Amino acid sequence: MFSKFKSYLNQFVEISDDEFDIICKAGVERHLRKSQSLLHDGEVWNYNCFIVSGCFRLYRFGEDGTDHTMRFGIENWWMTDQESYNQGTPSEYNIEALAKSTVLLWKKDSWQKLIATVPALKLFEEGLQARAYEASQQRIYSLISGSAEEKYLTFQKTYPNVFNKVPLYMVASYLGMSRETLSRIRKG
Amino acid sequence: MFSKFKSYLNQFVEISDDEFDIICKAGVERHLRKSQSLLHDGEVWNYNCFIVSGCFRLYRFGEDGTDHTMRFGIENWWMTDQESYNQGTPSEYNIEALAKSTVLLWKKDSWQKLIATVPALKLFEEGLQARAYEASQQRIYSLISGSAEEKYLTFQKTYPNVFNKVPLYMVASYLGMSRETLSRIRKG
Repeated sequence: MFSKFKSYLNQFVEISDDEFDIICKAGVERHLRKSQSLLHDGEVWNYNCFIVSGCFRLYRFGEDGTDHTMRFGIENWWMTDQESYNQGTPSEYNIEALAKSTVLLWKKDSWQKLIATVPALKLFEEGLQARAYEASQQRIYSLISGSAEEKYLTFQKTYPNVFNKVPLYMVASYLGMSRETLSRIRKG
Repeated sequence: MFSKFKSYLNQFVEISDDEFDIICKAGVERHLRKSQSLLHDGEVWNYNCFIVSGCFRLYRFGEDGTDHTMRFGIENWWMTDQESYNQGTPSEYNIEALAKSTVLLWKKDSWQKLIATVPALKLFEEGLQARAYEASQQRIYSLISGSAEEKYLTFQKTYPNVFNKVPLYMVASYLGMSRETLSRIRKG
């Protein structure tokens, strides 16, 4: 599992075998069954979580009890609630596996030590955060500017293999539209 | 103008007088009239830009020529296209002053040198980026989950003094709704 992570990391930064050993020893592998949770709202999110395989979603309940899908997570992505992680505050989000999944987990304090020990990992993390911010700007632009059709096409590009794995209502809530609108577009 | 910036910075990190001198000498003050541009799409955004006074918006043209307001910028905020800045690619955005404004500008290479010289500034920047990412997550949540009324209330909290300074259509496009819907809410 860690070898997949090494190939992934090497796309972005150069990590020596010794450095990679240190990174591996600080993390754990965890297997989840479908519908198993990694985070419940009210808990503090205290992990760095890399998805080796499977599929996740991060969602939040509105005041009326409706759940809103903030994002999905697939192979080679990270799942996090950065606000809870950074500030140590209870999360407003939930993270659940949408299929049988495998993740690598590092506790926050172990990760901080790694970052201080392995400069390439610090560099990787800065790049990851920049890409996450840029992706969120693209998502905001799509949400304020796009037609329902354009939003759906953007979703398909972002998550090419997710649509057939998850219920329609989750995709509709990710796109901020009703199930009826999404069904109409897919048929059209 | 730099003294206002010092008070601002000191809210987040401790900067010594000597360090602050170095920061000031690397930057310039610039005054803009209403409607003056700081960035046109197609240009590379190469600055760190702190708003001392005034009001800005960052917007982008859709394929049909409609302009979409990504965000506003007010006193003590930063304006940036982070993607163009990080990657050195032509920006898809425009930044214009919506009122007579004053900014402090640091060129990217000067700023990088400051970051390497003043550890507190590096720390400040990391915090700023984390807050910007968190704010973008809140905005995405508001866009996918909120009613038009809730989106408008969130806007008023985020930009308490902006509404009366900018045309209605800019606020409507920021909120991803039609002018008619926004007018109806404001009257309601």
